[in-house]
Amino acid sequence: MDLFTAIRERASCRTYSNEPVGEETLMKIIEAGMQAPSPANNQPWDFFIITRKETKMKIYEESLRCKKGLFEKSGWKWLDSYQVGFLTDVPVLIAVTGDPAKSGADIFLEQGGLGYQHACAAAIQNMLLAAHALGLGSLWYTLFGQEEIKKILGIDDKRAVVAIICIGKPARGPFKTKRAKIEEKIFRIS
Amino acid sequence: MDLFTAIRERASCRTYSNEPVGEETLMKIIEAGMQAPSPANNQPWDFFIITRKETKMKIYEESLRCKKGLFEKSGWKWLDSYQVGFLTDVPVLIAVTGDPAKSGADIFLEQGGLGYQHACAAAIQNMLLAAHALGLGSLWYTLFGQEEIKKILGIDDKRAVVAIICIGKPARGPFKTKRAKIEEKIFRIS
Repeated sequence: MDLFTAIRERASCRTYSNEPVGEETLMKIIEAGMQAPSPANNQPWDFFIITRKETKMKIYEESLRCKKGLFEKSGWKWLDSYQVGFLTDVPVLIAVTGDPAKSGADIFLEQGGLGYQHACAAAIQNMLLAAHALGLGSLWYTLFGQEEIKKILGIDDKRAVVAIICIGKPARGPFKTKRAKIEEKIFRIS
Repeated sequence: MDLFTAIRERASCRTYSNEPVGEETLMKIIEAGMQAPSPANNQPWDFFIITRKETKMKIYEESLRCKKGLFEKSGWKWLDSYQVGFLTDVPVLIAVTGDPAKSGADIFLEQGGLGYQHACAAAIQNMLLAAHALGLGSLWYTLFGQEEIKKILGIDDKRAVVAIICIGKPARGPFKTKRAKIEEKIFRIS
């Protein structure tokens, strides 16, 4: 698939069929992630592949707990109707973790220590594009507590879970949300 | 260009020719960035386009100041030989900023408030891929102080500068750095 087509069409998918994702396809998606840039080529990412129903159920429950807490803190009514059942339907979840020590020179900067997060986010974007080009839907998901999710997945304290990526055949859609006009987003420095 | 070719070939470029980047090309690259996902489609990004030599010089000087400070703090000898002259040679720099208030539900999470950084990083990755597909080199650059760079560019305190992206015709290379083997980076949750 053409790069610009993939970039333009890729959209968040929240309804998946339970058709399994083939191993070769999954590896292509992760390999795409691993081609992202990172500070001093530190490659701070690791990919935790989740396919077992029981583990998905635990993530789902953690997400419900998190959603309830958010609803109480934010008062955002839309959260109440936001369903996260796709977490158990989706054939594959990939927890993308980053190592905070692998942020390059960034760790010495005032605003620093985010290099590993940026690199992981770039890797995730590659993965979402790759999934789309391979006919799959995807979602960048972050509605979970850091400590809780690491406990569920058995991930050590040296890693941070940047996001959980849902990957599977879309049951319908996905539908691209609208973007601002470019004129609203660019400024020319004179 | 095929998506997987762009993902595989894209590499950091640190040597640019001074050939200008056409306006249409530049808009294509920014449009690609704007197609990235963001928390609740908040689109937290803005793009500050820098083409004036005087501004590039100021960024270069800020980068030298920052490099000196890093060298003192880190003791990393390689920093001494790391040249940043490409900041003045490169035809276009784009400062990608993010609005911390546009992180979605993330702001209520324990590890939260990073959603806008992730979205901007995803936008940047789209831009780097787009630049490559359009025959241009690019670099994700973060060696600057947050307050200092905002002062140079006249960017208000509500925005964070996530990175400065260099874009231009490569004078040579770029050469892709090696990646780990996939087996070193994946874990299967049982």
